Amino acid sequence: MTDAMTLILVRHGQSEWNEKNLFTGWVDVELTEKGRAEATRAGELIKESGLEPDILYTSLLTRAIDTAHLALKAAGRGWIDVKRNWRLNERHYGALQGKDKTQVRDEFGEEQFMTWRRSYDVPPPAIADDDEFSQVNDPRYAKAEGEMPKSECLKDVLERFLPYWEEEIAPTLVSGKTVMITAHGNSLRALVKHLEQISDEDIAGLNIPTGIPLVYKIDPATKMPIGKGEYLDPEAAAAGAAAVASQGKH
Amino acid sequence: MTDAMTLILVRHGQSEWNEKNLFTGWVDVELTEKGRAEATRAGELIKESGLEPDILYTSLLTRAIDTAHLALKAAGRGWIDVKRNWRLNERHYGALQGKDKTQVRDEFGEEQFMTWRRSYDVPPPAIADDDEFSQVNDPRYAKAEGEMPKSECLKDVLERFLPYWEEEIAPTLVSGKTVMITAHGNSLRALVKHLEQISDEDIAGLNIPTGIPLVYKIDPATKMPIGKGEYLDPEAAAAGAAAVASQGKH
Repeated sequence: MTDAMTLILVRHGQSEWNEKNLFTGWVDVELTEKGRAEATRAGELIKESGLEPDILYTSLLTRAIDTAHLALKAAGRGWIDVKRNWRLNERHYGALQGKDKTQVRDEFGEEQFMTWRRSYDVPPPAIADDDEFSQVNDPRYAKAEGEMPKSECLKDVLERFLPYWEEEIAPTLVSGKTVMITAHGNSLRALVKHLEQISDEDIAGLNIPTGIPLVYKIDPATKMPIGKGEYLDPEAAAAGAAAVASQGKH
Repeated sequence: MTDAMTLILVRHGQSEWNEKNLFTGWVDVELTEKGRAEATRAGELIKESGLEPDILYTSLLTRAIDTAHLALKAAGRGWIDVKRNWRLNERHYGALQGKDKTQVRDEFGEEQFMTWRRSYDVPPPAIADDDEFSQVNDPRYAKAEGEMPKSECLKDVLERFLPYWEEEIAPTLVSGKTVMITAHGNSLRALVKHLEQISDEDIAGLNIPTGIPLVYKIDPATKMPIGKGEYLDPEAAAAGAAAVASQGKH
């Protein structure tokens, strides 16, 4: 029997638009000072735990890239290999990108708001190519070659993330490397849904806190976890998840 | 005929030990605030010039990694692919690592000092494995597998850099990508010696300033430059090179 492999998931810290309560999606906003501090804290937790990431995967979004840079620096592992892919990006929020969450809730009602935020398979309306918050002409997505979404539900995120997991990340874990992924609330929810085999209904209740590493032991034979994921700071993780769940409420 | 490819070289900005006038080599020191500002300025110059790096190569040293992070962020290209390799590291300064440049000059005399700093093929004494400034047990060099130097002259740097240039970087350029390299005074001198076919004698007089992008157009047929390299801010580059040349003088 081979030893279990280690997978470390980190959701980026507070961004400028988290703070402003706007739907962000693929809009490339910066971390706030608080977000930068969260990233550094994540790296300190990794260091204190004795984990040593060998390779980093990030989305193509600055807030995940900067979180990784700060966290790995704090963990003393800033020199490891890096791979970035759009398949790790946040859920594309379609026409909601750039809109205030509370205003959307007031305009469309609580039910529609919660459907767009939490339903597994109902995407928001598609974004127009000429919308100021569309990424259709952003050169970083040249490699997405016609697969670039214009709106996504969580099911869509899972479907575009999973091929990258199966073809790239899981084989890297199986090869014996400790893998760190820095990504987003919904791309990480999609991965956790797959890893913990959470149902389409129950995933609505899962919230991943920012900046607290979530660690899985992966069985190389099945590429699935042995037991549940564990947060490196469980108390802070519980408080953080509760804060995420309350977003958009008055 | 294929179009020429673009190669951008950036020497990291001021580090804590540049400021303290210590021989640094492979010791992993941080950038100073000035060094961070130089990195951002390098990125702004790249952006203003209209250059768009597609892939980044760095050494395994924090000061080059952080320079790249800041420069690419300022250039709006923080999301590009990254590869790191020990072959881009600074020259290993052997037993001189951690020693004050002026003290070494006073202790060993001007001639020996200049030989260690500027001769093409005389390395300083080897560093002991138990020296506090040895990297023999640093996990980041696990892949160097017995090739890790204990002291290097510029010739040694060229000999360990060139295989990586030939096998990895030059083919990437030939494939049509704009390549950016962030590295060090001596690893970049070694590359420039190769690219401009500078003699073993003349290379002693070449100084590369910090934080000013040096751009080559590379002929894909020969993997060699068309014309000389051009600094994006020639005036600042001339002043910077003069400052490097005066290091270690009273």
